[in-house]
This record gives sequence, C-alpha cells and structure tokens, in this order.
Amino acid sequence: MQKILGNLEKGLAFVLSAPGGTGKTTLAKMLFHEFDSISPSISYTTRKPRPGEEDGRDYYFVSHAEFEEMVKSNQFLEHAKVYQDYYGTSRRLVESEQEKGKHVLLVIDTQGALQLMKSFKAIFIFIKPPSMEVLGSRLAVRRSETDEAIEHRLSWADKEISLASSYDYQIINDDLKIAYIVLKSILIAEEHKNR
Amino acid sequence: MQKILGNLEKGLAFVLSAPGGTGKTTLAKMLFHEFDSISPSISYTTRKPRPGEEDGRDYYFVSHAEFEEMVKSNQFLEHAKVYQDYYGTSRRLVESEQEKGKHVLLVIDTQGALQLMKSFKAIFIFIKPPSMEVLGSRLAVRRSETDEAIEHRLSWADKEISLASSYDYQIINDDLKIAYIVLKSILIAEEHKNR
Repeated sequence: MQKILGNLEKGLAFVLSAPGGTGKTTLAKMLFHEFDSISPSISYTTRKPRPGEEDGRDYYFVSHAEFEEMVKSNQFLEHAKVYQDYYGTSRRLVESEQEKGKHVLLVIDTQGALQLMKSFKAIFIFIKPPSMEVLGSRLAVRRSETDEAIEHRLSWADKEISLASSYDYQIINDDLKIAYIVLKSILIAEEHKNR
Repeated sequence: MQKILGNLEKGLAFVLSAPGGTGKTTLAKMLFHEFDSISPSISYTTRKPRPGEEDGRDYYFVSHAEFEEMVKSNQFLEHAKVYQDYYGTSRRLVESEQEKGKHVLLVIDTQGALQLMKSFKAIFIFIKPPSMEVLGSRLAVRRSETDEAIEHRLSWADKEISLASSYDYQIINDDLKIAYIVLKSILIAEEHKNR
C-alpha cells in the first residue's frame, strides 16, 4: 500500500529550529499527531522538569555529571547550552528510529543545528515569525516572563533568524494552518527525492 | 497574505516526465485547477490537432518549416521528436510566466528533459507506474491503439523509466490521490527552499 509518508526502509532526519514563540512545538505536535511514521527525538537535558513534563517523554532529565559523561563518550550528535542548561541529542536514539524506517524530527536551537550541519545527514528547516513585532507580542501574551526576559529572548531570536539562510528550508509562521501544510510538504517531498 | 503557493517574485520551473498512461496529464490538470499560481507551458508541435484540441490552449500548432525556423533561431529551451512529430518548449513563453511570479509546469518526455537538465534551472519530477504490468493494462483499457502500438509504447516506457533516477524526484502513481499530494508537496517544498 502506497502511503503519503513512511515508505522508506531507512527514515530521514529533519532538524527544526525556530526562535521561542514561533510555534515550533505546536507544529511538531501536529506532525506527530498526523503521521505515525515520524518520531520525536527526545533530548537529554540538565534542566529541572517543568510541571507536567515527564522523563522519557518530554526529555531525559539527567544531572550535570551524567551529561558530561555522555559528552566525553561521544554519545551526542549535538549538544548546546541554552540559558544555563545543557541539551543534547543522543546519536543512538536517533539512529535506532531511522533504522526502523521512521523519520526523526529533531527540534533544536540554532547552535545545535549548526553543529549538526557539519557532521550529520539531515534536512534543516527554519521557522520564522512574520516579524519581530509579532514575535514580541506573542511572547508578551504568554505573560510568563518579565519584560527583561522578553527583551533578552527577542535579541536572541534576532541572532537565530540571521542564521535562517543556512538552513535547507525556511517557513514563515504567519498562518499556522499554512505553515503546517508547508512543513509537512517538505517532509513528503524529501521522502520522494532521488539521493 | 501568506499563501500555500505563489509567494515568489520570480516563479520556478518544474519539469514533469512520465511514460504515457502514467497519469501525468491528469496530475498536471489537477495542479492547474487547484493553484492559479502555476501556469502550463504550452508546447509548439508539428503534429496535427486531435479532435477537441485548440491552438494556443493545448499546443501551438505549426508547420515543419516554422518549427525548423524556431530551432535555428534558438527559440526552444528543448525540442524533441516523438513518433514522427516534433515538440518544442518556447524559452520566451516560459520566462515570461516566471517573471510574473508564476511557476511553470513543463510536461515533457525524457529526451526533452535530459536536454533541459544541462542548460535550464528547473526541478525535475518523474512519475512512475506502480509496475509495467499495471501500465500495460492501463494502456489496453484505453482501447485506442493496436496491440503492436501498445507493445511499442511499453518498450519505450521501459527506456524512460530507466532514466527516472536522473530526476530530482520520483513519484509512483499507484493511488492517484496520494500521487497528487506528493506532487503538490514537491512544489510547495521547493518554493520554501533556500537557494
């Protein structure tokens, strides 16, 4: 039976980056919900779980010592420090999903993505806000942070967006429905590419 | 306003090839019907119009002498002989659509496509039948040709299919709905590619 997605013997890896507030988590969830042939890459992190987060589902929560041990033994495809905390992607976890014929979606920040571009075969997708103004107001509406924290996030977002052209694809998330169609089109198209 | 397709200042060119009976005409019509940001490339040909075909809509019908004149003055992006008749794609027609921001879909055979790959910036898509058996029975059902003509078409199809891996993308047309989703996904993805 022909399927829209999930016809490959070895799955592909997709790397998704976007400044906070651009909708990457929502878009990723939509993909996992529609396609069982896409697996999330669950990161290792040293940050503490937030309310509702579960070990092994949202992240693998580890200590700084454990994280450093994994770095030393070369277990990470990439790892990065974001606001005092460490995040890393396990090479073994990603590859084992691909071997099962599943595509793996890695949602990681630009630092991690740039590391991966040098050493790892993946398709790199950047999600952009329609403008910095829209991003600022989206973050303000969340009301979970101080003005200073929002300022800091915006200036970091600006740095991240300047790297968008190093990615294979760019999607503007203005209308979520359209951004989602574009995102899944990229996955479907890439599956049908001659390599 | 963000659109699913048609956001570029200069449109892209897509080249679609497939053996006869694989559904390329149906798939192309579905694209033109859904997206007004995709224009067909209307070929010049020396073959006589079939019933219902219209000059300037289906083809530009020209004499052998006119066609040769156009070849000499380098007006074709590609041209090829298919079963005694000549077909050619006008460079000017394609470029003028692209300048308007429209994507252009060129439905051409493998000979023409291979010429284009060397000299023209386009995205090359090959549509395959699920198998030669299925293609044979699809052609037989049409009942418009002798067994010998069908045999000839099948052996030509076999040659064309052997070139599929030179294209950027391959789509198997087993289920028409799925093949169409894949085809439009390729167009949408390509529009969002960093170039």
